[in-house]
Amino acid sequence: MVNLETSKVPVIAIDAMGGDNAPVEIIKGAVSSASSDVKLILVGDEDIITSELQKYKYPEGSIEIFNATQVITGEDVPTVAIKQKKDSSMVVGLNMIKEGKAGAFISAGNTGALLTGATFIAGRIKGIERPALAGLLPNDNKTHTLLMDCGANIDCKPNYLLQFAEIGSIYMENVIGIKNPRVGLLNVGTEEEKGNTVVKEAHGLLKNSSLNFVGNVEASMISTGIADVIVCDGFVGNIVLKHTEGLAKSIMKMVKEELMSSSVSKFGALLAKGAFRKLKKRFDYREVGGAPFLGLNALVVKAHGSSDAKAISGAINQCNIFIKNDIVNKIKDRINI
Amino acid sequence: MVNLETSKVPVIAIDAMGGDNAPVEIIKGAVSSASSDVKLILVGDEDIITSELQKYKYPEGSIEIFNATQVITGEDVPTVAIKQKKDSSMVVGLNMIKEGKAGAFISAGNTGALLTGATFIAGRIKGIERPALAGLLPNDNKTHTLLMDCGANIDCKPNYLLQFAEIGSIYMENVIGIKNPRVGLLNVGTEEEKGNTVVKEAHGLLKNSSLNFVGNVEASMISTGIADVIVCDGFVGNIVLKHTEGLAKSIMKMVKEELMSSSVSKFGALLAKGAFRKLKKRFDYREVGGAPFLGLNALVVKAHGSSDAKAISGAINQCNIFIKNDIVNKIKDRINI
Repeated sequence: MVNLETSKVPVIAIDAMGGDNAPVEIIKGAVSSASSDVKLILVGDEDIITSELQKYKYPEGSIEIFNATQVITGEDVPTVAIKQKKDSSMVVGLNMIKEGKAGAFISAGNTGALLTGATFIAGRIKGIERPALAGLLPNDNKTHTLLMDCGANIDCKPNYLLQFAEIGSIYMENVIGIKNPRVGLLNVGTEEEKGNTVVKEAHGLLKNSSLNFVGNVEASMISTGIADVIVCDGFVGNIVLKHTEGLAKSIMKMVKEELMSSSVSKFGALLAKGAFRKLKKRFDYREVGGAPFLGLNALVVKAHGSSDAKAISGAINQCNIFIKNDIVNKIKDRINI
Repeated sequence: MVNLETSKVPVIAIDAMGGDNAPVEIIKGAVSSASSDVKLILVGDEDIITSELQKYKYPEGSIEIFNATQVITGEDVPTVAIKQKKDSSMVVGLNMIKEGKAGAFISAGNTGALLTGATFIAGRIKGIERPALAGLLPNDNKTHTLLMDCGANIDCKPNYLLQFAEIGSIYMENVIGIKNPRVGLLNVGTEEEKGNTVVKEAHGLLKNSSLNFVGNVEASMISTGIADVIVCDGFVGNIVLKHTEGLAKSIMKMVKEELMSSSVSKFGALLAKGAFRKLKKRFDYREVGGAPFLGLNALVVKAHGSSDAKAISGAINQCNIFIKNDIVNKIKDRINI
């Protein structure tokens, strides 16, 4: 077993058994990202993983297997599963980051279980009140907007939102490469006095912080790239994240229906096929690979339940940059000024 | 002046001075909807309206003018404006419905002022705790989904959400023509135990009601038409309404950019122009004409700030059906069982 302290390359643990396309696509994604610059540990049923890995060639020593006999399924109750399935690929993987054996953990499995397990097992950075799930939403300015919290904390205090902004800014600056990220507070109006009690108080905290706070952001502006980091409570964030996914799908369905309704537009659509493919790519969650769960002593990435090899590869890439840039210590420094 | 009690046709008051395109487009919209089946009252500066009306022909007696010397602007503070601008077109129009001189009032002016004024002047239906703003969102099932509350009540109690569902169902059944409308509760998961305290309690109330409750609805399903009425608090509803508008615009911008990036796809786009126009129409707020503010002793419709003649005409049509179907009394009957 690799030791994180002595390893010269980032060590990333991957839940080989979680998600709709596990283990085949998860393992395929790991293989496609395997290189001498990273150490990948596939956590799950040793026999299954070994036999699957035999299909591929990859740099020697770049992939290891760590056995785990149980699997947390989508039907499992998160809190119960984390407590009872001690030898599940998810719990074993989270323990690896707790014990410093890996700098990041990726899972496409049960979201609730992953968030619960990550908080209880991996542990929060000292000073962080609530770790939060960040969603990377595409915007029409050809970049991404980090929305957090996307569902880990249904009820939030004003100070949580300030911390989300601080952590999110560090992430966008160091992992996505946006200098001095603009922070917006999601609200029902741009005026300072708008919103509920929590949001109004958070506005004051953000205004007095050293962040690049651009004020309240109305929902109509989320997709324009008006801010690089947008903060809100986990209830609202979850609604926005899922509505983005659903509405983008619905609009593409409507576009298709309209195009197929006449032979002239059908021919037009054929010629414009490449353009549509590119657009679809912009909304493809696989491009970013998953949602980072931030504020923990290591990075935990929630990959989409239907992740394929490409999505897992994207998540691995995200983890790699995160570890190389020492984001955990950057967050520690910021929070404990 | 027409008397609502004795008028045989629906009487609709219209704020001729509110909105970006007032008074020209508002008056044009009224003229295009003028008929012997409806009585329209344009509220605002008599001289301006008279001179504008002279440009058009319309059935005699179908349009009246009611003078109001002041205008509430977008910059006015809602509560202050409603109190101080007693002779504004908005306050005068709301007083007309309070006094039974009109069965509905349409304004494209200051949203906050209209909601505040409507509640204080027009008055709630007895038994209604909070009137709510309903948004008609297009879905990929070729119908509309009524989302309420879209911003009138930032903080809600569980019982408000139940009432939103009751009023919304009556509206969808009688104005939009959907039999036994399916009601969904917007939430972060489909499971009953999901959500914050308010939503969890509202779930119980909805489940035990006589409504056609289909359970929790995740945001990814809003645009699929999974429910005809979706209820949530005004903070969340406002975010969803505005994000729908913003994201649809962003996606269309992205489609255009991709299509213009090569000459082949540009030619394809030309052929598919008609299809895109039809799609744009589906997301055109002017088709529905505005958001009904429900639970008052009359219908108040908040037309989009940038409403043109077509939007105003759509709003008039909505009001006409509302009055003809006696929705206020239908809500009264339902609430006071």
